[in-house]
Amino acid sequence: MEQAEIGLIGLGVMGSNLALNIAEKGNKIAVFNRTPDKTDEFVAAAGDLRGQIVPCKTIEEFVAAIRPPRPIIIMIKAGDAVDQQMELLKPYLSKGDIMIDAGNANFRDTMRRFDNLKDSGLTFIGMGVSGGEEGARHGPSIMVGGTEESWKRVEKVLTSIAAKYNNEPCVDWLGENGAGHFVKTIHNGIEYADMQMIAEIYGILRDGLKMSAVEIADVFGEWNKGRLESYLIEITEKVLRATDPIAGGPMVDMILDQAGQKGTGKWSVIEAQNMGVAATAIEAAVAARILSSQRGERQAAEGILGLPSVTPAAVSDRKAFIADLENALLAAKIGAYAQGFAVMAAASKEFGWNLPMPTIAKIWRAGCIIRSQFLDEITSAFTKDPHVANLIVTPAFAGMVKDTDAALRRVVSYAALGGLPVPALASALGYFDAYRRGRGTANLIQAQRDFFGAHGFDRLDGADSHHGPWGSGASAA
Amino acid sequence: MEQAEIGLIGLGVMGSNLALNIAEKGNKIAVFNRTPDKTDEFVAAAGDLRGQIVPCKTIEEFVAAIRPPRPIIIMIKAGDAVDQQMELLKPYLSKGDIMIDAGNANFRDTMRRFDNLKDSGLTFIGMGVSGGEEGARHGPSIMVGGTEESWKRVEKVLTSIAAKYNNEPCVDWLGENGAGHFVKTIHNGIEYADMQMIAEIYGILRDGLKMSAVEIADVFGEWNKGRLESYLIEITEKVLRATDPIAGGPMVDMILDQAGQKGTGKWSVIEAQNMGVAATAIEAAVAARILSSQRGERQAAEGILGLPSVTPAAVSDRKAFIADLENALLAAKIGAYAQGFAVMAAASKEFGWNLPMPTIAKIWRAGCIIRSQFLDEITSAFTKDPHVANLIVTPAFAGMVKDTDAALRRVVSYAALGGLPVPALASALGYFDAYRRGRGTANLIQAQRDFFGAHGFDRLDGADSHHGPWGSGASAA
Repeated sequence: MEQAEIGLIGLGVMGSNLALNIAEKGNKIAVFNRTPDKTDEFVAAAGDLRGQIVPCKTIEEFVAAIRPPRPIIIMIKAGDAVDQQMELLKPYLSKGDIMIDAGNANFRDTMRRFDNLKDSGLTFIGMGVSGGEEGARHGPSIMVGGTEESWKRVEKVLTSIAAKYNNEPCVDWLGENGAGHFVKTIHNGIEYADMQMIAEIYGILRDGLKMSAVEIADVFGEWNKGRLESYLIEITEKVLRATDPIAGGPMVDMILDQAGQKGTGKWSVIEAQNMGVAATAIEAAVAARILSSQRGERQAAEGILGLPSVTPAAVSDRKAFIADLENALLAAKIGAYAQGFAVMAAASKEFGWNLPMPTIAKIWRAGCIIRSQFLDEITSAFTKDPHVANLIVTPAFAGMVKDTDAALRRVVSYAALGGLPVPALASALGYFDAYRRGRGTANLIQAQRDFFGAHGFDRLDGADSHHGPWGSGASAA
Repeated sequence: MEQAEIGLIGLGVMGSNLALNIAEKGNKIAVFNRTPDKTDEFVAAAGDLRGQIVPCKTIEEFVAAIRPPRPIIIMIKAGDAVDQQMELLKPYLSKGDIMIDAGNANFRDTMRRFDNLKDSGLTFIGMGVSGGEEGARHGPSIMVGGTEESWKRVEKVLTSIAAKYNNEPCVDWLGENGAGHFVKTIHNGIEYADMQMIAEIYGILRDGLKMSAVEIADVFGEWNKGRLESYLIEITEKVLRATDPIAGGPMVDMILDQAGQKGTGKWSVIEAQNMGVAATAIEAAVAARILSSQRGERQAAEGILGLPSVTPAAVSDRKAFIADLENALLAAKIGAYAQGFAVMAAASKEFGWNLPMPTIAKIWRAGCIIRSQFLDEITSAFTKDPHVANLIVTPAFAGMVKDTDAALRRVVSYAALGGLPVPALASALGYFDAYRRGRGTANLIQAQRDFFGAHGFDRLDGADSHHGPWGSGASAA
């Protein structure tokens, strides 16, 4: 019997869909699940694809069914379960076999798992998969981290199942060990920021302009034909247009404003801190989710403090204002992506990954949640200058910032005066205004630090004198 | 010979000053330094206090000189050196002896060190000391974490050396193991935010109102007589008034705008993430320091993008505008402190510390960098209601927010329109506006997450229906 090209353990929602995708693209796949009933169910539901699937009831059988060196995708709950599964698998594997964690792992776990296998003859791939259930089934964006040799072994299968953007597959090898899972984490951090910025604009339309969900859907629908064209804008229109089957009104008006999170946003912020990179838009988005989850506290606070005593200003030219919102969202989005890529650039140095920025932008153009036309523009910008310090100083994006930042200013000002929270939009504006300013205000902070802690400072004129003449009461020498 | 009440290892700047403080308050102290020359120099410079100091050249001698159970302050560089010093010391210690790390440790290291000693008969105190060199010498704020029994052993000495606020000593036992170092970390996080907010206001006065350093000093001097009265405002006036001894102009104008950081700000942000608390003002402040440190990038960006094309609006009533800035700074400061205390409340639950919030505010009123009248008001608010969900819903602070938030709105709007970065001020405003709003915009985010990932949502009407009617293209069930 012809051996399977690849194996997959874990037939949950994501695993099943990935396995069907693999089979459908003409790759023979061996599958295994801890509870064998699930394997039977999976095969029973596989229809025409059954011929490509080798269902296995024991690990021995499963491993024997795969062509060596064996790539084995593990698609189970992230965390300790992955380590346990790897331990169970190891005794059956041979030199060159590749365990592939396709779950949402913290890249630091991936680094540890990769390192632990170093002298075993086995190897490990940490594979970020984005696109949810739909993506897994019909074409996800796939971010691979591991040895280049192990990538060569899986390249064909993964290329066959990945999403395509203008026929280019949205998968690539990004670097050693944790590179794939790190990039997936930052993808999600950017996704948090993108979604939060959309929600803030929605809030302005709803609470500032008092528009209905369907009217707001029309606005996002229009925007999806312009420079904001993206999956997230597209689905924003769709969810705003949906009718609640129970109460009959707009669905979105009946949904509790309490957003969950699963950890990748938090990891993005923590790693931005570890890398020493300003990622304020992602931070603002994670904080906004946290505040959303504290609904009881917010309601109590509204009871005690009241809503802000101000009300949003009347908008005389609604069309111009909505154009401002469109430009503001684009500007803020540029800030969020610039920050995300800056975090990746720093991590690339820190871990020696040599992350290919144009490639990352490229494989995010389709399949994943943040897919968009915009990422094609980022691809171009980074292709022209892969080592640029920041996305916003590339010619294309510098131009976009200059075109749109005035609108972002007006929108942040309108929201601030009107009592509408726009933490992510405001963070992007603050980022631009600090980043493009050669002379900031940290000279005062350095003076204070020298005053109370003798920390020292450098001088603009380069003179070799590092403490101030603070006099009595100061610690400074 | 009468034994010493306490011992201290490490006669660097902080250690020497702390030892002199201890001696001066009538406590006999044994001192040891790895390089004995430093011990000699220290004693030689101790003047009248020499009689209270027992200089020791060997660890044996040092340990023998201290009255058991022996409290031994270790004041050396944070990190591995502390572990090494502890290992060197351990063989000479007896049951009940207490090693006290007074350095700027990460509280997770403190937790580990504390746990490692659990079965040894020895114990460990993690002691946060704030106030810099001056504080160490004449009265720091001291945050103690460890067993209550070990606190009882050191209470008298520490009380004698701590700063006093209206005769109340700024030291207390805050909880087990890492409590003291954790609270010190958040103290520093708040300090970052406080300093950044002052710097942003300074930026508005300098770049918006085009005021000279000395004119700005006058403004801060006035503010220090009002509700903003604090050490940081006081020294802001002083550093702004100082003249550069080399070039002759204002000292602050000659200082490079590139601020350093030593890790506690970053730790504050990371722990806020770990605790799931929105700490956007601290995040904005840490990000601002990071951007300040990227001076080369900023200068290049100014070259490419130019400064913002807008200019700050003309201010017709300067007096009223400066009053707005004062109120805006107070409002933003309330936001930063509220966030810091919220992080501590969450950590207290997480680690079972039972942190006493009124006590923390109390011992920060003097000795430390953020000392102020304002902390006395926080003490009162938390004394009246120690388990309140958030500082800003206490009656006193709710009143202050209502009095000042309109000014914060105007200032954020002015800066946004004028191209002046105010990330920390804006983050505080966004925090208020999100926190006091019972109905936010995360319903849209929940709709999107359900659309692309079938994450599910809850409904406002509590109906047991958790997915939207999204139709084709959606992953949601």
